[in-house]
Amino acid sequence: MKRVGFLLRVKHDKLDEYKEHHKHVWPEMQEALRESGWHNYTLFLHEDGRLFGYFETPHSLAQAQALMEEKEVNTRWQQFMAPYFEENVRPDESFIELEEVFHLD
Amino acid sequence: MKRVGFLLRVKHDKLDEYKEHHKHVWPEMQEALRESGWHNYTLFLHEDGRLFGYFETPHSLAQAQALMEEKEVNTRWQQFMAPYFEENVRPDESFIELEEVFHLD
Repeated sequence: MKRVGFLLRVKHDKLDEYKEHHKHVWPEMQEALRESGWHNYTLFLHEDGRLFGYFETPHSLAQAQALMEEKEVNTRWQQFMAPYFEENVRPDESFIELEEVFHLD
Repeated sequence: MKRVGFLLRVKHDKLDEYKEHHKHVWPEMQEALRESGWHNYTLFLHEDGRLFGYFETPHSLAQAQALMEEKEVNTRWQQFMAPYFEENVRPDESFIELEEVFHLD
């Protein structure tokens, strides 16, 4: 399993709504993520809007994203989420991948 | 297990050295972390110096840090790392904890 870390930024005035939606992520979206190799996936939010994502996958980030792109539910979810991000871009098109510099099992 | 996410910032002109040191974290320091309940611990670095930490623990972040504070090797490691962080503070004294807003197993 590869560990992936990425950064995004949520609009500061939409944090509460963003958080609320993430308490109720559509079951089909959760299933699509699992089928596409997104495991032990957590999103963490700073009160200034910085969002950090962590997940474990047998793939690379690019491959895990490519598998999600094939899912129709992902297109709907990303369009639903776009207004919560700067410039209203789909969040899955603006991931900044981070470099793993240390790991302890 | 609780999942913890935190942010730190490494000095921009010291990223390479910081990364190099983290390829060779002292075995006693790794052992101290394990004994203090820091599991599946990963550090991710952005090229601008933002550092994101993720680990899993039976404790809270505060408790896991308190257990590390009892370890003499931690004092030495934190002093060794302080010059790599803004204002030369010990990194373990400047963790910004993030809020978990989504999790998928």
